[in-house]
Amino acid sequence: MKATTIYAARDVRLENQPDPTIQKPTDALVKVVAACVCGSDLWYYRGDNPLAEPFRIGHEFVGIVQEIGSAVRSLHKGDFVIAPFMYSDNTCPNCRVGIQSACSAGGFWGGPDRDGLLADGGQGEYVRVPLADGTLVATRETPDDAMIPSLLALSDVMGTGWHAAMAAGVQEGDTVVVVGDGAVGLSGILAASRMGAERIVAMSRHEQRQRIARSFGATDVIAERGEAGEAAIVELTGGVGADAVLECVGTSQSMTTAIEIARPGATVGYVGVPHGVELPVRSMFSRNVGVAGGVAPVRQYLPALRDDVLSGAINPGLVFDLDLPLDKVAEGYAAMDERRAIKAMLRP
Amino acid sequence: MKATTIYAARDVRLENQPDPTIQKPTDALVKVVAACVCGSDLWYYRGDNPLAEPFRIGHEFVGIVQEIGSAVRSLHKGDFVIAPFMYSDNTCPNCRVGIQSACSAGGFWGGPDRDGLLADGGQGEYVRVPLADGTLVATRETPDDAMIPSLLALSDVMGTGWHAAMAAGVQEGDTVVVVGDGAVGLSGILAASRMGAERIVAMSRHEQRQRIARSFGATDVIAERGEAGEAAIVELTGGVGADAVLECVGTSQSMTTAIEIARPGATVGYVGVPHGVELPVRSMFSRNVGVAGGVAPVRQYLPALRDDVLSGAINPGLVFDLDLPLDKVAEGYAAMDERRAIKAMLRP
Repeated sequence: MKATTIYAARDVRLENQPDPTIQKPTDALVKVVAACVCGSDLWYYRGDNPLAEPFRIGHEFVGIVQEIGSAVRSLHKGDFVIAPFMYSDNTCPNCRVGIQSACSAGGFWGGPDRDGLLADGGQGEYVRVPLADGTLVATRETPDDAMIPSLLALSDVMGTGWHAAMAAGVQEGDTVVVVGDGAVGLSGILAASRMGAERIVAMSRHEQRQRIARSFGATDVIAERGEAGEAAIVELTGGVGADAVLECVGTSQSMTTAIEIARPGATVGYVGVPHGVELPVRSMFSRNVGVAGGVAPVRQYLPALRDDVLSGAINPGLVFDLDLPLDKVAEGYAAMDERRAIKAMLRP
Repeated sequence: MKATTIYAARDVRLENQPDPTIQKPTDALVKVVAACVCGSDLWYYRGDNPLAEPFRIGHEFVGIVQEIGSAVRSLHKGDFVIAPFMYSDNTCPNCRVGIQSACSAGGFWGGPDRDGLLADGGQGEYVRVPLADGTLVATRETPDDAMIPSLLALSDVMGTGWHAAMAAGVQEGDTVVVVGDGAVGLSGILAASRMGAERIVAMSRHEQRQRIARSFGATDVIAERGEAGEAAIVELTGGVGADAVLECVGTSQSMTTAIEIARPGATVGYVGVPHGVELPVRSMFSRNVGVAGGVAPVRQYLPALRDDVLSGAINPGLVFDLDLPLDKVAEGYAAMDERRAIKAMLRP
């Protein structure tokens, strides 16, 4: 089969690899129907995250079950399945409270499991899925091709945006501000809208992203950043601040803005992996602004979000603005790196 | 009247002061029945907080309404009232969402209001209460003398411990760890117990405080601190961590412990004013451990906690282990400073 390996910054290659096979009774083999490139893949691509050695990259995919291990109970050959960006057993204490991203038996695509056995990356033709029962979520029927982008978005960005909104405690009628207009931030807007927020402010200065933000439910757009952006939110909320803030970037500036624009008693739901962030604890304490969030337990939200996609209630696939065959994977990375694309889909 | 002024570290004096009078139509005059010394008063007493100039100290008191301004509607002369540790109008947007400690018209006892008019401190014979309708909570009848300590505890420590438990999201059946065995930490144990926590772990190495902790509902006591304490909690929870953690100290070590012992997805409710705390954002993010809390909006909780005290459901007054006449106020500070007392009550 063909699969993608990242060798160094700006060096991703689609290469021939051995076809994966069932290694453990809890495995499933999945033929990838669509995969995509994540903003977090770009950390390696840009050299922002060190790369100890080449690895098989990609953690978002949907596909068809080809084969199951002898212990797999909930899946069948031919099922269309959505994979979350981490695998998990869905039975350990952390999974049972809904934090499958901290599963004690789980792990990352492309990385080693607890026994040192490597999982495949998602940007390839086939994937051996560990802990298949606890990881994959199937649809009842094979979905129409038009549904693929929105189902694929559930692998990561939509579940992550949803987690930001859950962590921020978005309630019906709230005024919500979303910091970050990448695919996750846009998904956070869609999540807040689906949760019944009344006013949703997108902080975005890119025209195309502003358009998607509005189609996802944003009622207001603030193009300013930093102190000017904070002042604009304060004015827009009559001096009170936002009822809930979704932080979907992970930089020091974006987190500072998120905390400053939260009203007393509000929570900042953060899903942008923190890079150089220092939390201003005295400011948080004096105004009772909490922070909650982290690595999104996408698996928790998948069944409900799958139903929302299939019913047409949400259409998160609009974040994909570039559709490439898998052998153009390098172009997908380059387009996202150069901000020519919000998010690139790859079809084997 | 007599009232307490702090002049410098270790220099508190009860002195004659002019009797307060109604200054604004929203004021009430209260004759203090009982007041007390707070752990946060000790920051000034110990020189940990700088003292720009002498000020009238004390922010916890209960008393009898002597006189009301012309605009006061909910109180009458003769009412027994409980004062929260800050005054508030209870009508501004921050108050309406329950964060009266961020009231846009509110302030601190002993400090200036928005017009520069000084409020009295609580450690005196009389107090002019600004924004009396929004601040004071009355009992239906004048309570028995035996109820006074528990009602006085609602001024600050019990409401603050309750806030820690609310911020941590304590649920029925939870395993809760309380970091800190001062009056607030002990009150946090009582709050968690009242909220139905199944297992409550007190981190305490003082025998007398352990006794109160157990009488308030602690099921386990851990005497170790730092890494040894964290290891003990991990073992006690079967490697999972606590469902909710109450941080009631405010030091770097106590906050680190609180975050490390929280299970993935849990929240640390913190009410210890942070001194030198740096939040470990990467650890929080990787395990989805949130932090929430801050200056407790005691006013929000006062009506329900008053009813709980009067019905006998809770008895937070057990935190008082020293009962002094007001003219021994300096001894109250010294006893708490030297850890001879958990909390000193003062009776004019």
